[in-house]
Amino acid sequence: MINLPCPIPLQQYPHILMAHGGGGRLMQQLIQMFLTAFGTADAIGHDAATLGLKGNKIAFTTDSYVVKPLFFPGGDIGSLAVNGTVNDLAMAGARPLYLSVGFILEEGLSIETLWQVALSIQQAAETAKVKIVTGDTKVVDRGKGDGIFINTTGIGIIEHSQIIAPQSVQPGDLILLNGDLARHGIAIMAVREGLEFETTIESDSAALAEEVLELIAANIEIHCLRDLTRGGLASVLNEIAVAAKVGIEIDESLIPVREDVQGACEILGFDPLYVANEGRFVAFIPQKYGDRALEIMRSHTNPRQQLLVRLLRIKTAW
Amino acid sequence: MINLPCPIPLQQYPHILMAHGGGGRLMQQLIQMFLTAFGTADAIGHDAATLGLKGNKIAFTTDSYVVKPLFFPGGDIGSLAVNGTVNDLAMAGARPLYLSVGFILEEGLSIETLWQVALSIQQAAETAKVKIVTGDTKVVDRGKGDGIFINTTGIGIIEHSQIIAPQSVQPGDLILLNGDLARHGIAIMAVREGLEFETTIESDSAALAEEVLELIAANIEIHCLRDLTRGGLASVLNEIAVAAKVGIEIDESLIPVREDVQGACEILGFDPLYVANEGRFVAFIPQKYGDRALEIMRSHTNPRQQLLVRLLRIKTAW
Repeated sequence: MINLPCPIPLQQYPHILMAHGGGGRLMQQLIQMFLTAFGTADAIGHDAATLGLKGNKIAFTTDSYVVKPLFFPGGDIGSLAVNGTVNDLAMAGARPLYLSVGFILEEGLSIETLWQVALSIQQAAETAKVKIVTGDTKVVDRGKGDGIFINTTGIGIIEHSQIIAPQSVQPGDLILLNGDLARHGIAIMAVREGLEFETTIESDSAALAEEVLELIAANIEIHCLRDLTRGGLASVLNEIAVAAKVGIEIDESLIPVREDVQGACEILGFDPLYVANEGRFVAFIPQKYGDRALEIMRSHTNPRQQLLVRLLRIKTAW
Repeated sequence: MINLPCPIPLQQYPHILMAHGGGGRLMQQLIQMFLTAFGTADAIGHDAATLGLKGNKIAFTTDSYVVKPLFFPGGDIGSLAVNGTVNDLAMAGARPLYLSVGFILEEGLSIETLWQVALSIQQAAETAKVKIVTGDTKVVDRGKGDGIFINTTGIGIIEHSQIIAPQSVQPGDLILLNGDLARHGIAIMAVREGLEFETTIESDSAALAEEVLELIAANIEIHCLRDLTRGGLASVLNEIAVAAKVGIEIDESLIPVREDVQGACEILGFDPLYVANEGRFVAFIPQKYGDRALEIMRSHTNPRQQLLVRLLRIKTAW
């Protein structure tokens, strides 16, 4: 899939022109390109996708992706746009089903670049078991955008009856974290600042839905889930503490941060607790489910999320 | 509603800063501002909205809005972003229910401007009977965006069993058009080019769902619906002709274009048949339903869509 040649004749049309957003022949060609990348999703190119949906409770979330550089160690804007929105659905305890993809393209963008991003979107969608079912493309004048912006909006289905929300958090809950912190933010910053380390720091970008759905399927009571994106772990814990009206005390020595990431944080002046991740989340659960939940989370080992830590309990009610 | 004061202290924070996208206190303040504008949609600010949904067939559509100027005669980017996506759902014969709103803001944007756009979104949503249930905000560096880009993604429910699609179009069908053409595109271009006419040309931007749902409720058989946005009537008829494998012949003299709009088209070198509209659509229906459908469409009179025309029938099968 990733080596599929771009269906647009690149010698003739190497770059995005304003006409690619104009509703005419070039836009049709671009839509065909996306149809090729995203498979046989018939709905794309029409006004709306028509979807079958079993169940009557859904999760709905939207996110825009404006990352620079477009390609970075461990990912690119396309896979990020799929994983990020899939993860927002997962944090609601939903099974991700459908995504829309909206592109805002800057005039002059290389079509080969766009094609690589489209293929990456499709590959990430297959991995996360979601379908790209509808899309949109707009082109803005050169200098009025920044290469590619992507909005993905997701629909998931909620198959359980748990109330997974900050308000469900209780004093005494365990907070489980699914891996080491700060790799995504540092991977991006390292490229931007031209920093080189002995090892390449790769983004932790990954889809988390499978792992969450397995926790739910194991009848583990889940009080709250939150992925650790903008603002990192510290901001998330602060937000949840406020919403749940509890105090949260953590033991920083229990939080895994890779040595090279820690070093990069020191050079760049960042606190890893505040740096963005794209494949990390915390689960608030009652103590009695701790061992079983840890076992499930540990079974989802892949090179990007092999570390797992049990944080301190929530200590004081306000 | 439209006069609600902005909850952000504008003297202290008159402009969007990079920190408004950073996940910290300023972003929380911005989210609170949107919550105020969009009412009590509890879901905003969390990762995903949880929605009840009756029925098992939904329509799903996405669109990004990059219009300049942000405010124009007859509308603004906010109302346009609601109406455009509501109309895409309507064109699938769906009842629009929920919208997500994703903002990409350029550093330096006036927060007062953003507030006015947010209020306009809310007002348009109320008019169109949809709810804004989830959102996202990203901030890009000055010079990497263009004030405000908005993505809206919509969910609607399909309550009928008609197959409304180009493939359903038959030779002999009537094509009904709900109003005069080219006002939106010309309203925008007139402001951009600094043109002044005796009368102000206002955009035709409007939500079309009520009108379409009434056609469906009247048991009118509808073969295809399409709103006449990018590329205008001519591009839409071309696309449908190709997909339906029919030829379409229209009598240009039957197509209403206001005199001032026609004049502006001549000055600017545009063909009104190719100019974008934001409140116009065509309905392909069997001849026997023509009179009843016209009656319903005419009953939806408002200052922006008072003209209605019956185009020529589809003539030749290929």
